[in-house]
Amino acid sequence: MAITTQRVVVLVGGVGGAKLALGLQGLLPAENLTVIVNTGDDFWHYGLRVCPDIDTVLYTLSGRVNQAWGWGIADDTTITLDALRAYGEDTWFRLGDRDIATHLLRTDRLRAGNTLTAITAHLAKQMGVAVRVLPMSDTFVETKVLTATHGELSFQEYFVRHRWQPPVVSLRYEGAEHAQPSAAVLEALAAADVVLIAPSNPWLSLAPMLAIPTLREALQACAAPKVAITPIVAGQAIKGPAAKLMQELGWTPSPQSVAAYYGALLNGFVYDQRDSMPNLDGVRTIGFDTIMITYKDKLRLAADVLAWVQSWEVSK
Amino acid sequence: MAITTQRVVVLVGGVGGAKLALGLQGLLPAENLTVIVNTGDDFWHYGLRVCPDIDTVLYTLSGRVNQAWGWGIADDTTITLDALRAYGEDTWFRLGDRDIATHLLRTDRLRAGNTLTAITAHLAKQMGVAVRVLPMSDTFVETKVLTATHGELSFQEYFVRHRWQPPVVSLRYEGAEHAQPSAAVLEALAAADVVLIAPSNPWLSLAPMLAIPTLREALQACAAPKVAITPIVAGQAIKGPAAKLMQELGWTPSPQSVAAYYGALLNGFVYDQRDSMPNLDGVRTIGFDTIMITYKDKLRLAADVLAWVQSWEVSK
Repeated sequence: MAITTQRVVVLVGGVGGAKLALGLQGLLPAENLTVIVNTGDDFWHYGLRVCPDIDTVLYTLSGRVNQAWGWGIADDTTITLDALRAYGEDTWFRLGDRDIATHLLRTDRLRAGNTLTAITAHLAKQMGVAVRVLPMSDTFVETKVLTATHGELSFQEYFVRHRWQPPVVSLRYEGAEHAQPSAAVLEALAAADVVLIAPSNPWLSLAPMLAIPTLREALQACAAPKVAITPIVAGQAIKGPAAKLMQELGWTPSPQSVAAYYGALLNGFVYDQRDSMPNLDGVRTIGFDTIMITYKDKLRLAADVLAWVQSWEVSK
Repeated sequence: MAITTQRVVVLVGGVGGAKLALGLQGLLPAENLTVIVNTGDDFWHYGLRVCPDIDTVLYTLSGRVNQAWGWGIADDTTITLDALRAYGEDTWFRLGDRDIATHLLRTDRLRAGNTLTAITAHLAKQMGVAVRVLPMSDTFVETKVLTATHGELSFQEYFVRHRWQPPVVSLRYEGAEHAQPSAAVLEALAAADVVLIAPSNPWLSLAPMLAIPTLREALQACAAPKVAITPIVAGQAIKGPAAKLMQELGWTPSPQSVAAYYGALLNGFVYDQRDSMPNLDGVRTIGFDTIMITYKDKLRLAADVLAWVQSWEVSK
């Protein structure tokens, strides 16, 4: 079976996950790829429902993302934001003018009673994204960050307002315990030939999904190979607070720690070829170049990982 | 007593009312002018609370209004709106990018539990407007328009989406019966030396206020002279649907009809000098040039009206 015939589900957060999703999108027929996106970062801002990870994924997959940042829309303006600042507002969260259109449409549809899953499908279609992009849940789950210096912060306050500088004591995922994954998420997992966990932040992007009991159980029950790609290379996060956060939470920032965190959920783990092989029981490991700068890098990593997983069949 | 020492309250809707308010602002010390604004046109749009008349008044009084339209912000862009249209949305209501900042701030504060009165005061301050601008009520009142061709429409659907073309059968002001004017509105009326009813549409801009029982009673109880300025000149509305609407509701579009509609609420009525004097019992009448094109026109009409009312004292 060619790698492009595999039905692939990839669990992603924001920038790093979107990059891998873009590689997979370039490689697979659209109907064979489902991207399940963290929504623990979502928040209400100025009456708008903002879903940073969904937007990053949609903007990336539709080719409109700001390449320099990995998020936001390329060449977006901030006329509204500048006007808010002129009104004396603390404009700590960037709202681009084109980006606001996404938030307005989403908010309008949510207030009209539509699910986030349906709205995301509509936005994807309007942006010309043919692969399935699914929020992890239609229930609001909110990542809360207990910090040593600023008390408990909402995720965006921690991440954007305070630029992830306050030391993290612990995390919780409010609402996750009673949240349900959508039927579409469960169906995608049940039908998957491969499940990939993108090189996103395990604690901030994947943990909110894993904190939803039914979603975690569905992942555990899923018979397909489940493979995580390390977000930590040479002791550093490729982007964002992963390494800093791991240290604050008492983990050594290493591929080994990431794999240990996911534990028995995984059958396979991809570390970066710059690192030495982690020592994992019962989990296949391989080293690839996991740094995705160019589009070619993303295609290559996606192809490397899928080809590797397929080789397991052959070697059985 | 000089006219500028009078404490003036003016009841206004959108464009026409804002013009008179601007003239009054130019004439009076800020502490002597209170502008009470219709909020029956307010609506939720894409999750934003939009208050068209308050915004028109604030943009006009702060000098940022689009002069050609009489509403909106001069030189505002529509980047967000264009992006919404690109998402396939029916962008029938114009949202300028700078204008969206006003809606976002208002929505944010409303959702945080602030009153529309407090939010409007904050916006006025941020825009450098020193006169008091008060929404007629902090309770939502929604003007509903029963049409012969499109059933019942919300005000903005009638006014903007259908450009006030559907023939109107009747109007109602949902929520008015149980709404209360704010304490600030009642205090302003109680302290007023003169109450002016701006040349706004009686049925669409003033009626929502008069439909609030306590507000109507406060007006009735107010001992100050109460003077309306005609929005109908030579059988035509200066702007908008007033004349068309009056005909549909069975009124001849004339100053006489406007004065009759306000009835015993008035002590004085200003018709346009182009028209003949209406025949009104127990109401003083005078003809002025009521067309306000230039800033000078607005100052002149405001001064004419206040001087006329003051002459009543002298002639008593």
